[in-house]
Amino acid sequence: MKDIAYVNGNFLDINDAKVSVKDRGLLFGDGVYEVAGVIEGVLIDNWAHLRRLERSLDYISLELPIDLKTLSEVQKELIFRNNMKEGTLYLHVTRGESQQREFEFPKDVAPSIVMFVQHKKILHISQDKLRAKVMTLPDLRWKRRDIKSIALLAQVLAKQTAHENGCDEVWMYEDNFITEGGSSNAFIIQKNKLISRKTNETILSGITRQAVLKLVEQESLLFEERPFSIEEAYQASEAFYTSASVFVMPVISIDEKIIGDGNPGPLTIKLRNLYENFAKSFINQENNE
Amino acid sequence: MKDIAYVNGNFLDINDAKVSVKDRGLLFGDGVYEVAGVIEGVLIDNWAHLRRLERSLDYISLELPIDLKTLSEVQKELIFRNNMKEGTLYLHVTRGESQQREFEFPKDVAPSIVMFVQHKKILHISQDKLRAKVMTLPDLRWKRRDIKSIALLAQVLAKQTAHENGCDEVWMYEDNFITEGGSSNAFIIQKNKLISRKTNETILSGITRQAVLKLVEQESLLFEERPFSIEEAYQASEAFYTSASVFVMPVISIDEKIIGDGNPGPLTIKLRNLYENFAKSFINQENNE
Repeated sequence: MKDIAYVNGNFLDINDAKVSVKDRGLLFGDGVYEVAGVIEGVLIDNWAHLRRLERSLDYISLELPIDLKTLSEVQKELIFRNNMKEGTLYLHVTRGESQQREFEFPKDVAPSIVMFVQHKKILHISQDKLRAKVMTLPDLRWKRRDIKSIALLAQVLAKQTAHENGCDEVWMYEDNFITEGGSSNAFIIQKNKLISRKTNETILSGITRQAVLKLVEQESLLFEERPFSIEEAYQASEAFYTSASVFVMPVISIDEKIIGDGNPGPLTIKLRNLYENFAKSFINQENNE
Repeated sequence: MKDIAYVNGNFLDINDAKVSVKDRGLLFGDGVYEVAGVIEGVLIDNWAHLRRLERSLDYISLELPIDLKTLSEVQKELIFRNNMKEGTLYLHVTRGESQQREFEFPKDVAPSIVMFVQHKKILHISQDKLRAKVMTLPDLRWKRRDIKSIALLAQVLAKQTAHENGCDEVWMYEDNFITEGGSSNAFIIQKNKLISRKTNETILSGITRQAVLKLVEQESLLFEERPFSIEEAYQASEAFYTSASVFVMPVISIDEKIIGDGNPGPLTIKLRNLYENFAKSFINQENNE
Protein backbone atom coordinates (compact mmCIF):
# COMPACT_ATOMS: atom_id res chain seq x y z
CA MET A 1 0.00 0.00 0.00
CA LYS A 2 1.23 3.50 -0.92
CA ASP A 3 1.38 6.14 1.78
CA ILE A 4 -1.40 8.69 1.84
CA ALA A 5 -0.60 12.34 2.47
CA TYR A 6 -2.88 15.26 3.30
CA VAL A 7 -2.63 18.47 1.26
CA ASN A 8 -5.10 21.29 1.85
CA GLY A 9 -8.28 19.30 2.31
CA ASN A 10 -7.35 16.31 0.15
CA PHE A 11 -6.06 12.87 1.06
CA LEU A 12 -3.72 11.89 -1.78
CA ASP A 13 -1.39 9.10 -2.80
CA ILE A 14 2.04 10.37 -1.70
CA ASN A 15 3.15 10.48 -5.36
CA ASP A 16 0.34 12.91 -6.11
CA ALA A 17 0.95 15.02 -3.01
CA LYS A 18 2.39 18.20 -4.45
CA VAL A 19 2.45 21.93 -3.83
CA SER A 20 2.92 24.83 -6.22
CA VAL A 21 6.45 26.04 -6.91
CA LYS A 22 5.05 29.37 -5.67
CA ASP A 23 4.34 27.96 -2.19
CA ARG A 24 6.07 30.31 0.23
CA GLY A 25 7.22 27.34 2.27
CA LEU A 26 9.35 26.31 -0.70
CA LEU A 27 10.47 29.81 -1.76
CA PHE A 28 11.15 31.34 1.66
CA GLY A 29 10.96 28.70 4.40
CA ASP A 30 7.91 30.74 5.37
CA GLY A 31 6.12 28.14 7.49
CA VAL A 32 6.16 26.20 10.76
CA TYR A 33 5.86 22.51 11.55
CA GLU A 34 5.37 19.79 14.13
CA VAL A 35 6.32 16.13 14.31
CA ALA A 36 4.33 13.99 16.76
CA GLY A 37 5.05 10.38 17.70
CA VAL A 38 2.52 7.62 17.04
CA ILE A 39 2.29 4.28 18.86
CA GLU A 40 -0.46 1.71 18.36
CA GLY A 41 -2.01 4.21 15.96
CA VAL A 42 -2.35 6.88 18.65
CA LEU A 43 -0.70 10.32 18.67
CA ILE A 44 1.53 10.95 21.68
CA ASP A 45 1.11 14.22 23.59
CA ASN A 46 -0.44 15.69 20.45
CA TRP A 47 -2.23 18.58 22.10
CA ALA A 48 1.06 19.91 23.42
CA HIS A 49 2.33 19.80 19.81
CA LEU A 50 -0.76 21.56 18.48
CA ARG A 51 -0.51 24.27 21.11
CA ARG A 52 3.13 24.82 20.20
CA LEU A 53 2.12 24.96 16.53
CA GLU A 54 -0.31 27.71 17.47
CA ARG A 55 2.49 29.65 19.19
CA SER A 56 4.84 29.22 16.20
CA LEU A 57 2.08 30.42 13.86
CA ASP A 58 1.46 33.38 16.10
CA TYR A 59 5.18 34.32 16.11
CA ILE A 60 5.19 34.51 12.30
CA SER A 61 1.74 36.19 12.13
CA LEU A 62 0.13 33.32 10.27
CA GLU A 63 -3.45 32.34 10.97
CA LEU A 64 -4.52 28.71 10.81
CA PRO A 65 -7.48 28.41 8.44
CA ILE A 66 -9.07 25.62 10.50
CA ASP A 67 -9.32 25.15 14.26
CA LEU A 68 -7.00 22.82 16.17
CA LYS A 69 -9.80 20.35 16.91
CA THR A 70 -10.47 19.92 13.18
CA LEU A 71 -6.74 19.69 12.53
CA SER A 72 -6.46 16.89 15.07
CA GLU A 73 -9.37 15.06 13.38
CA VAL A 74 -7.46 15.26 10.08
CA GLN A 75 -4.40 13.84 11.81
CA LYS A 76 -6.42 10.87 13.10
CA GLU A 77 -7.97 10.31 9.71
CA LEU A 78 -4.53 10.30 8.09
CA ILE A 79 -3.25 7.71 10.59
CA PHE A 80 -6.34 5.59 9.89
CA ARG A 81 -5.98 5.85 6.09
CA ASN A 82 -2.33 4.83 6.34
CA ASN A 83 -3.17 1.96 8.69
CA MET A 84 -0.32 3.35 10.71
CA LYS A 85 0.77 1.68 13.92
CA GLU A 86 4.07 3.25 14.95
CA GLY A 87 6.13 6.17 13.70
CA THR A 88 5.69 9.90 13.34
CA LEU A 89 3.17 12.29 11.84
CA TYR A 90 4.64 15.35 10.15
CA LEU A 91 2.51 18.47 9.78
CA HIS A 92 3.36 21.90 8.44
CA VAL A 93 1.59 25.14 7.71
CA THR A 94 3.08 27.60 5.21
CA ARG A 95 1.96 31.07 4.13
CA GLY A 96 0.53 29.50 0.98
CA GLU A 97 0.87 30.13 -2.70
CA SER A 98 1.24 33.67 -3.96
CA GLN A 99 1.47 34.56 -7.64
CA GLN A 100 4.17 37.18 -7.08
CA ARG A 101 7.33 36.19 -5.27
CA GLU A 102 7.77 39.09 -2.86
CA PHE A 103 9.22 38.79 0.65
CA GLU A 104 6.35 40.72 2.24
CA PHE A 105 3.24 38.76 3.26
CA PRO A 106 0.84 38.39 0.34
CA LYS A 107 -2.75 39.54 0.75
CA ASP A 108 -5.75 37.17 0.48
CA VAL A 109 -3.66 34.03 0.28
CA ALA A 110 -4.79 30.92 2.19
CA PRO A 111 -2.13 29.13 4.25
CA SER A 112 -1.14 25.68 2.98
CA ILE A 113 -1.41 22.63 5.27
CA VAL A 114 0.55 19.46 4.54
CA MET A 115 0.70 16.22 6.55
CA PHE A 116 2.29 12.84 6.01
CA VAL A 117 3.30 9.86 8.12
CA GLN A 118 6.57 8.01 8.52
CA HIS A 119 6.47 4.41 9.66
CA LYS A 120 9.31 3.63 12.05
CA LYS A 121 10.01 2.16 15.44
CA ILE A 122 9.91 4.69 18.20
CA LEU A 123 8.65 2.77 21.26
CA HIS A 124 9.90 -0.62 20.07
CA ILE A 125 13.33 0.66 19.14
CA SER A 126 15.92 -2.08 19.64
CA GLN A 127 18.16 -1.87 22.73
CA ASP A 128 21.35 -1.72 20.67
CA LYS A 129 20.10 1.51 19.07
CA LEU A 130 19.64 3.20 22.43
CA ARG A 131 23.32 4.22 22.44
CA ALA A 132 23.75 7.56 20.73
CA LYS A 133 27.05 9.18 19.81
CA VAL A 134 27.01 12.96 19.85
CA MET A 135 29.25 15.49 18.10
CA THR A 136 29.37 19.14 19.14
CA LEU A 137 29.41 21.95 16.54
CA PRO A 138 28.94 25.73 16.64
CA ASP A 139 25.30 26.80 16.58
CA LEU A 140 24.93 28.77 13.34
CA ARG A 141 21.15 29.17 13.48
CA TRP A 142 19.11 32.34 13.52
CA LYS A 143 18.14 34.02 16.77
CA ARG A 144 14.47 32.94 16.98
CA ARG A 145 14.96 29.25 17.71
CA ASP A 146 11.74 29.20 19.73
CA ILE A 147 9.87 29.30 16.40
CA LYS A 148 9.64 25.78 14.96
CA SER A 149 10.15 26.98 11.40
CA ILE A 150 10.73 24.85 8.31
CA ALA A 151 13.82 26.96 7.49
CA LEU A 152 16.10 24.20 8.78
CA LEU A 153 19.20 24.40 6.61
CA ALA A 154 21.54 25.09 9.56
CA GLN A 155 20.27 21.95 11.31
CA VAL A 156 20.52 19.92 8.08
CA LEU A 157 24.18 20.88 7.61
CA ALA A 158 25.05 20.31 11.28
CA LYS A 159 23.35 16.91 11.46
CA GLN A 160 24.98 15.89 8.19
CA THR A 161 28.43 16.76 9.56
CA ALA A 162 27.70 14.73 12.71
CA HIS A 163 26.50 11.86 10.53
CA GLU A 164 29.66 11.96 8.40
CA ASN A 165 31.64 11.73 11.63
CA GLY A 166 29.85 8.56 12.69
CA CYS A 167 27.53 10.31 15.14
CA ASP A 168 23.77 10.09 15.63
CA GLU A 169 23.10 13.65 16.72
CA VAL A 170 24.75 17.04 16.91
CA TRP A 171 24.75 19.17 20.03
CA MET A 172 25.18 22.78 18.99
CA TYR A 173 26.99 25.29 21.18
CA GLU A 174 27.20 29.03 21.51
CA ASP A 175 29.75 30.84 23.70
CA ASN A 176 30.98 27.41 24.82
CA PHE A 177 27.54 26.39 26.17
CA ILE A 178 25.35 23.72 24.60
CA THR A 179 22.15 25.18 23.16
CA GLU A 180 20.31 22.06 21.95
CA GLY A 181 20.47 19.07 19.63
CA GLY A 182 20.00 19.33 15.87
CA SER A 183 16.47 17.96 16.34
CA SER A 184 16.30 17.30 20.08
CA ASN A 185 16.84 18.82 23.52
CA ALA A 186 20.05 18.07 25.41
CA PHE A 187 20.34 16.91 29.03
CA ILE A 188 23.27 15.96 31.22
CA ILE A 189 23.35 14.38 34.67
CA GLN A 190 25.98 15.33 37.25
CA LYS A 191 25.94 12.66 39.96
CA ASN A 192 22.16 12.39 40.32
CA LYS A 193 21.20 15.91 39.27
CA LEU A 194 19.68 16.62 35.86
CA ILE A 195 20.76 19.77 34.04
CA SER A 196 19.02 21.28 31.02
CA ARG A 197 19.02 24.73 29.48
CA LYS A 198 16.05 27.00 30.15
CA THR A 199 13.85 27.49 27.09
CA ASN A 200 13.68 31.01 25.67
CA GLU A 201 14.50 32.44 22.23
CA THR A 202 17.82 30.55 22.20
CA ILE A 203 16.24 27.09 21.94
CA LEU A 204 13.00 25.38 21.06
CA SER A 205 10.66 24.41 23.86
CA GLY A 206 10.67 20.66 23.28
CA ILE A 207 7.40 18.83 23.90
CA THR A 208 9.17 15.66 25.04
CA ARG A 209 11.50 17.78 27.17
CA GLN A 210 8.49 19.34 28.92
CA ALA A 211 6.94 15.93 29.55
CA VAL A 212 10.23 14.56 30.91
CA LEU A 213 10.57 17.54 33.24
CA LYS A 214 7.07 16.89 34.57
CA LEU A 215 8.10 13.29 35.28
CA VAL A 216 11.29 14.55 36.94
CA GLU A 217 9.14 16.69 39.21
CA GLN A 218 6.69 13.87 39.98
CA GLU A 219 9.60 11.63 40.94
CA SER A 220 11.21 14.42 43.00
CA LEU A 221 14.48 14.03 41.09
CA LEU A 222 17.09 16.75 41.41
CA PHE A 223 16.97 19.21 38.51
CA GLU A 224 18.74 22.42 37.66
CA GLU A 225 17.53 24.51 34.70
CA ARG A 226 20.61 26.29 33.38
CA PRO A 227 23.00 26.17 30.41
CA PHE A 228 25.85 23.67 30.67
CA SER A 229 29.25 23.96 29.01
CA ILE A 230 30.85 21.57 26.54
CA GLU A 231 33.36 20.65 29.25
CA GLU A 232 30.55 19.83 31.70
CA ALA A 233 28.95 17.64 29.04
CA TYR A 234 32.23 15.72 28.56
CA GLN A 235 32.45 15.12 32.31
CA ALA A 236 28.79 14.27 32.91
CA SER A 237 27.97 10.98 34.62
CA GLU A 238 25.09 10.50 32.16
CA ALA A 239 23.72 12.32 29.13
CA PHE A 240 20.66 11.98 26.94
CA TYR A 241 18.47 13.86 24.50
CA THR A 242 14.74 14.01 23.98
CA SER A 243 12.48 14.34 20.94
CA ALA A 244 9.08 13.17 19.76
CA SER A 245 10.65 10.46 17.59
CA VAL A 246 13.36 9.10 19.92
CA PHE A 247 11.66 9.75 23.30
CA VAL A 248 14.62 9.66 25.73
CA MET A 249 17.84 8.73 23.92
CA PRO A 250 20.88 7.73 26.04
CA VAL A 251 24.16 9.32 24.94
CA ILE A 252 27.26 7.14 25.28
CA SER A 253 29.85 9.54 23.89
CA ILE A 254 30.28 13.22 23.10
CA ASP A 255 33.08 14.18 20.67
CA GLU A 256 34.40 10.63 21.15
CA LYS A 257 34.72 11.20 24.90
CA ILE A 258 33.00 8.32 26.70
CA ILE A 259 30.16 9.37 29.01
CA GLY A 260 30.02 7.44 32.29
CA ASP A 261 31.00 3.83 31.63
CA GLY A 262 29.97 4.08 27.95
CA ASN A 263 26.55 2.56 28.52
CA PRO A 264 23.13 4.13 29.05
CA GLY A 265 23.09 5.43 32.63
CA PRO A 266 20.63 4.22 35.28
CA LEU A 267 18.82 7.54 35.70
CA THR A 268 18.52 7.88 31.90
CA ILE A 269 17.01 4.38 31.65
CA LYS A 270 14.61 5.21 34.49
CA LEU A 271 13.50 8.38 32.68
CA ARG A 272 13.09 6.52 29.39
CA ASN A 273 10.89 3.95 31.12
CA LEU A 274 8.86 6.68 32.80
CA TYR A 275 8.44 8.47 29.46
CA GLU A 276 7.47 5.25 27.68
CA ASN A 277 4.73 4.74 30.29
CA PHE A 278 3.62 8.33 29.83
CA ALA A 279 3.49 7.78 26.04
CA LYS A 280 1.49 4.56 26.47
CA SER A 281 -1.01 6.42 28.66
CA PHE A 282 -2.27 8.17 25.51
CA ILE A 283 -3.25 4.80 24.05
CA ASN A 284 -5.36 4.02 27.10
CA GLN A 285 -6.94 7.48 27.02
CA GLU A 286 -7.82 7.03 23.35
CA ASN A 287 -9.28 3.59 23.98
CA ASN A 288 -11.44 4.92 26.81
CA GLU A 289 -12.83 7.79 24.73
CA MET B 1 -1.05 34.04 -21.80
CA LYS B 2 -0.26 32.05 -18.66
CA ASP B 3 3.27 32.13 -17.32
CA ILE B 4 5.43 29.14 -18.07
CA ALA B 5 7.68 27.71 -15.37
CA TYR B 6 10.51 25.20 -15.58
CA VAL B 7 10.52 22.19 -13.25
CA ASN B 8 13.17 19.49 -13.64
CA GLY B 9 13.34 19.29 -17.40
CA ASN B 10 9.76 20.33 -18.16
CA PHE B 11 8.29 23.65 -19.26
CA LEU B 12 4.86 23.82 -17.61
CA ASP B 13 1.92 26.17 -17.24
CA ILE B 14 2.57 27.88 -13.90
CA ASN B 15 -0.59 26.27 -12.48
CA ASP B 16 0.86 22.84 -13.22
CA ALA B 17 4.30 23.70 -11.89
CA LYS B 18 4.47 21.70 -8.70
CA VAL B 19 6.95 19.82 -6.55
CA SER B 20 6.45 16.91 -4.17
CA VAL B 21 5.61 17.67 -0.54
CA LYS B 22 8.75 15.62 0.13
CA ASP B 23 10.98 18.13 -1.69
CA ARG B 24 13.72 19.05 0.78
CA GLY B 25 13.45 22.67 -0.29
CA LEU B 26 9.95 22.69 1.17
CA LEU B 27 10.66 20.55 4.24
CA PHE B 28 14.04 21.99 5.26
CA GLY B 29 14.87 25.10 3.21
CA ASP B 30 17.56 22.79 1.86
CA GLY B 31 18.36 24.65 -1.36
CA VAL B 32 19.92 27.77 -2.86
CA TYR B 33 18.66 30.31 -5.37
CA GLU B 34 19.40 33.22 -7.68
CA VAL B 35 17.32 36.06 -9.08
CA ALA B 36 18.68 37.73 -12.23
CA GLY B 37 17.33 40.85 -13.89
CA VAL B 38 15.98 40.79 -17.45
CA ILE B 39 15.70 43.76 -19.83
CA GLU B 40 14.68 43.54 -23.46
CA GLY B 41 14.50 39.79 -22.95
CA VAL B 42 18.18 39.57 -21.97
CA LEU B 43 19.59 38.38 -18.64
CA ILE B 44 21.73 40.97 -16.87
CA ASP B 45 25.14 39.86 -15.51
CA ASN B 46 23.82 36.30 -15.50
CA TRP B 47 27.18 34.55 -15.44
CA ALA B 48 28.05 36.28 -12.20
CA HIS B 49 24.76 34.92 -10.80
CA LEU B 50 25.47 31.42 -12.08
CA ARG B 51 28.97 31.44 -10.62
CA ARG B 52 27.56 32.52 -7.26
CA LEU B 53 24.96 29.74 -7.54
CA GLU B 54 27.84 27.32 -7.99
CA ARG B 55 29.50 28.66 -4.83
CA SER B 56 26.25 28.42 -2.83
CA LEU B 57 25.75 24.84 -4.05
CA ASP B 58 29.31 24.01 -3.08
CA TYR B 59 28.82 25.45 0.44
CA ILE B 60 25.87 23.11 1.04
CA SER B 61 27.55 20.15 -0.72
CA LEU B 62 24.96 19.93 -3.47
CA GLU B 63 25.97 19.00 -6.99
CA LEU B 64 24.18 20.57 -9.94
CA PRO B 65 22.89 17.77 -12.19
CA ILE B 66 23.49 19.82 -15.37
CA ASP B 67 26.32 22.16 -16.30
CA LEU B 68 25.98 25.94 -16.05
CA LYS B 69 25.99 26.38 -19.83
CA THR B 70 22.96 24.09 -20.16
CA LEU B 71 21.31 25.84 -17.23
CA SER B 72 21.77 29.20 -18.96
CA GLU B 73 20.22 27.75 -22.15
CA VAL B 74 17.18 26.72 -20.11
CA GLN B 75 16.97 30.24 -18.69
CA LYS B 76 16.96 31.72 -22.21
CA GLU B 77 14.35 29.23 -23.36
CA LEU B 78 12.13 30.15 -20.41
CA ILE B 79 12.41 33.86 -21.22
CA PHE B 80 11.54 33.09 -24.84
CA ARG B 81 8.53 30.90 -23.95
CA ASN B 82 7.20 33.63 -21.64
CA ASN B 83 7.79 36.29 -24.27
CA MET B 84 9.40 38.15 -21.44
CA LYS B 85 10.78 41.64 -21.93
CA GLU B 86 11.55 43.05 -18.51
CA GLY B 87 11.55 41.65 -14.99
CA THR B 88 13.38 38.94 -13.10
CA LEU B 89 14.13 35.27 -13.54
CA TYR B 90 14.03 33.20 -10.35
CA LEU B 91 15.98 29.95 -10.19
CA HIS B 92 16.51 27.52 -7.34
CA VAL B 93 18.13 24.17 -6.77
CA THR B 94 17.05 22.01 -3.83
CA ARG B 95 18.34 18.68 -2.56
CA GLY B 96 15.37 17.00 -4.22
CA GLU B 97 12.66 14.65 -3.13
CA SER B 98 13.46 11.97 -0.60
CA GLN B 99 10.93 9.39 0.56
CA GLN B 100 12.05 9.58 4.18
CA ARG B 101 12.11 12.93 5.92
CA GLU B 102 15.49 12.81 7.67
CA PHE B 103 17.75 15.82 8.21
CA GLU B 104 20.83 14.05 6.85
CA PHE B 105 21.43 14.18 3.09
CA PRO B 106 19.54 11.42 1.31
CA LYS B 107 21.44 9.02 -0.95
CA ASP B 108 20.76 8.69 -4.69
CA VAL B 109 18.37 11.63 -4.84
CA ALA B 110 18.53 14.01 -7.80
CA PRO B 111 18.51 17.74 -6.99
CA SER B 112 15.38 19.62 -8.06
CA ILE B 113 15.65 22.67 -10.33
CA VAL B 114 12.82 25.22 -10.54
CA MET B 115 12.68 28.44 -12.56
CA PHE B 116 10.00 31.04 -13.20
CA VAL B 117 9.84 34.62 -14.40
CA GLN B 118 8.27 37.73 -12.91
CA HIS B 119 7.29 40.54 -15.25
CA LYS B 120 8.02 43.94 -13.73
CA LYS B 121 9.77 47.20 -14.45
CA ILE B 122 13.38 47.22 -13.39
CA LEU B 123 15.12 49.50 -15.91
CA HIS B 124 12.03 51.53 -16.75
CA ILE B 125 11.03 52.04 -13.13
CA SER B 126 9.27 55.40 -12.73
CA GLN B 127 11.26 58.27 -11.20
CA ASP B 128 8.83 58.69 -8.30
CA LYS B 129 9.61 55.10 -7.21
CA LEU B 130 13.34 55.82 -6.99
CA ARG B 131 12.90 57.16 -3.46
CA ALA B 132 13.20 54.37 -0.95
CA LYS B 133 12.45 54.60 2.75
CA VAL B 134 14.50 52.30 4.93
CA MET B 135 13.87 50.95 8.42
CA THR B 136 16.63 49.39 10.53
CA LEU B 137 16.03 46.19 12.52
CA PRO B 138 18.26 43.70 14.36
CA ASP B 139 19.77 41.07 12.09
CA LEU B 140 18.31 37.78 13.35
CA ARG B 141 19.67 35.60 10.55
CA TRP B 142 21.95 32.60 10.77
CA LYS B 143 25.72 32.94 10.57
CA ARG B 144 26.27 31.76 6.96
CA ARG B 145 24.76 34.70 5.11
CA ASP B 146 27.21 34.20 2.26
CA ILE B 147 25.10 31.17 1.23
CA LYS B 148 22.14 32.35 -0.85
CA SER B 149 19.78 29.81 0.70
CA ILE B 150 16.01 29.60 0.31
CA ALA B 151 15.66 29.49 4.12
CA LEU B 152 14.60 33.15 4.17
CA LEU B 153 12.13 33.41 7.04
CA ALA B 154 14.23 35.97 8.95
CA GLN B 155 14.30 38.23 5.87
CA VAL B 156 10.56 37.71 5.28
CA LEU B 157 9.71 38.81 8.83
CA ALA B 158 12.12 41.77 8.74
CA LYS B 159 10.90 43.03 5.37
CA GLN B 160 7.29 42.61 6.47
CA THR B 161 7.93 44.73 9.58
CA ALA B 162 9.56 47.42 7.42
CA HIS B 163 6.59 47.25 5.04
CA GLU B 164 4.09 47.63 7.90
CA ASN B 165 6.03 50.72 8.94
CA GLY B 166 5.67 52.31 5.52
CA CYS B 167 9.19 51.43 4.39
CA ASP B 168 10.47 49.84 1.19
CA GLU B 169 13.42 47.96 2.59
CA VAL B 170 14.95 46.89 5.90
CA TRP B 171 18.60 47.42 6.75
CA MET B 172 19.58 44.86 9.32
CA TYR B 173 22.18 45.58 11.97
CA GLU B 174 24.40 43.62 14.30
CA ASP B 175 26.43 45.17 17.12
CA ASN B 176 25.17 48.57 15.96
CA PHE B 177 26.62 48.13 12.44
CA ILE B 178 24.51 47.66 9.32
CA THR B 179 25.02 44.22 7.80
CA GLU B 180 22.87 44.43 4.65
CA GLY B 181 19.37 44.96 3.32
CA GLY B 182 16.62 42.35 3.54
CA SER B 183 17.21 41.56 -0.14
CA SER B 184 19.90 44.07 -1.13
CA ASN B 185 23.32 45.45 -0.22
CA ALA B 186 23.56 48.73 1.68
CA PHE B 187 25.77 51.73 0.79
CA ILE B 188 26.23 55.15 2.29
CA ILE B 189 28.12 58.18 1.01
CA GLN B 190 30.00 60.52 3.35
CA LYS B 191 30.75 63.70 1.42
CA ASN B 192 31.92 62.07 -1.82
CA LYS B 193 33.22 58.79 -0.39
CA LEU B 194 31.26 55.56 -0.76
CA ILE B 195 31.19 53.15 2.17
CA SER B 196 30.06 49.54 2.05
CA ARG B 197 30.67 46.54 4.24
CA LYS B 198 33.21 43.95 3.13
CA THR B 199 31.62 40.68 2.02
CA ASN B 200 32.41 37.62 4.12
CA GLU B 201 30.21 35.17 6.04
CA THR B 202 28.27 38.07 7.60
CA ILE B 203 26.64 39.19 4.34
CA LEU B 204 25.90 37.97 0.85
CA SER B 205 28.24 38.94 -1.94
CA GLY B 206 25.77 40.90 -4.05
CA ILE B 207 26.17 40.62 -7.83
CA THR B 208 24.89 44.17 -8.41
CA ARG B 209 27.10 45.36 -5.56
CA GLN B 210 30.15 43.85 -7.27
CA ALA B 211 29.26 45.45 -10.60
CA VAL B 212 28.73 48.84 -8.92
CA LEU B 213 32.09 48.57 -7.20
CA LYS B 214 33.75 47.87 -10.54
CA LEU B 215 32.12 51.03 -11.92
CA VAL B 216 33.28 52.95 -8.84
CA GLU B 217 36.82 51.82 -9.58
CA GLN B 218 36.59 52.68 -13.29
CA GLU B 219 35.37 56.16 -12.40
CA SER B 220 38.08 56.53 -9.72
CA LEU B 221 35.46 57.39 -7.10
CA LEU B 222 36.48 57.32 -3.45
CA PHE B 223 35.50 54.08 -1.75
CA GLU B 224 36.06 52.58 1.66
CA GLU B 225 35.15 48.94 2.29
CA ARG B 226 34.21 48.73 5.96
CA PRO B 227 31.12 48.33 8.16
CA PHE B 228 29.23 51.53 8.95
CA SER B 229 27.14 52.20 12.05
CA ILE B 230 23.43 53.05 12.22
CA GLU B 231 24.45 56.55 13.37
CA GLU B 232 26.72 56.98 10.33
CA ALA B 233 23.86 55.91 8.10
CA TYR B 234 21.56 58.54 9.64
CA GLN B 235 24.17 61.22 9.02
CA ALA B 236 25.19 60.12 5.51
CA SER B 237 25.03 62.69 2.71
CA GLU B 238 23.57 59.99 0.42
CA ALA B 239 22.48 56.39 0.78
CA PHE B 240 21.35 53.66 -1.59
CA TYR B 241 21.01 49.93 -1.94
CA THR B 242 21.66 47.52 -4.78
CA SER B 243 20.03 44.34 -6.03
CA ALA B 244 19.36 42.54 -9.29
CA SER B 245 15.76 43.75 -9.35
CA VAL B 246 16.17 47.39 -8.27
CA PHE B 247 19.68 48.05 -9.67
CA VAL B 248 20.76 51.12 -7.65
CA MET B 249 17.95 52.37 -5.39
CA PRO B 250 18.31 55.84 -3.81
CA VAL B 251 17.39 55.99 -0.11
CA ILE B 252 15.67 59.18 1.04
CA SER B 253 15.14 58.29 4.70
CA ILE B 254 16.37 55.82 7.30
CA ASP B 255 14.18 55.29 10.40
CA GLU B 256 12.31 58.44 9.33
CA LYS B 257 15.53 60.48 9.44
CA ILE B 258 15.90 62.38 6.16
CA ILE B 259 19.07 61.57 4.22
CA GLY B 260 20.72 64.59 2.56
CA ASP B 261 17.98 66.91 1.33
CA GLY B 262 15.45 64.09 1.09
CA ASN B 263 16.01 63.48 -2.61
CA PRO B 264 18.19 60.99 -4.47
CA GLY B 265 21.76 62.28 -4.19
CA PRO B 266 23.90 63.25 -7.21
CA LEU B 267 26.49 60.50 -6.76
CA THR B 268 23.72 57.91 -6.32
CA ILE B 269 22.06 59.09 -9.56
CA LYS B 270 25.41 58.96 -11.33
CA LEU B 271 25.95 55.38 -10.14
CA ARG B 272 22.44 54.36 -11.17
CA ASN B 273 23.05 55.76 -14.66
CA LEU B 274 26.40 53.99 -14.87
CA TYR B 275 24.79 50.74 -13.76
CA GLU B 276 21.91 51.12 -16.22
CA ASN B 277 24.46 51.48 -19.02
CA PHE B 278 26.32 48.45 -17.73
CA ALA B 279 23.01 46.50 -17.70
CA LYS B 280 22.17 47.63 -21.24
CA SER B 281 25.60 46.45 -22.43
CA PHE B 282 24.36 42.86 -22.02
CA ILE B 283 21.64 43.52 -24.60
CA ASN B 284 24.23 44.62 -27.13
CA GLN B 285 26.43 41.62 -26.33
CA GLU B 286 23.49 39.27 -26.83
CA ASN B 287 22.55 40.93 -30.11
CA ASN B 288 26.12 40.60 -31.39
CA GLU B 289 26.34 36.88 -30.55
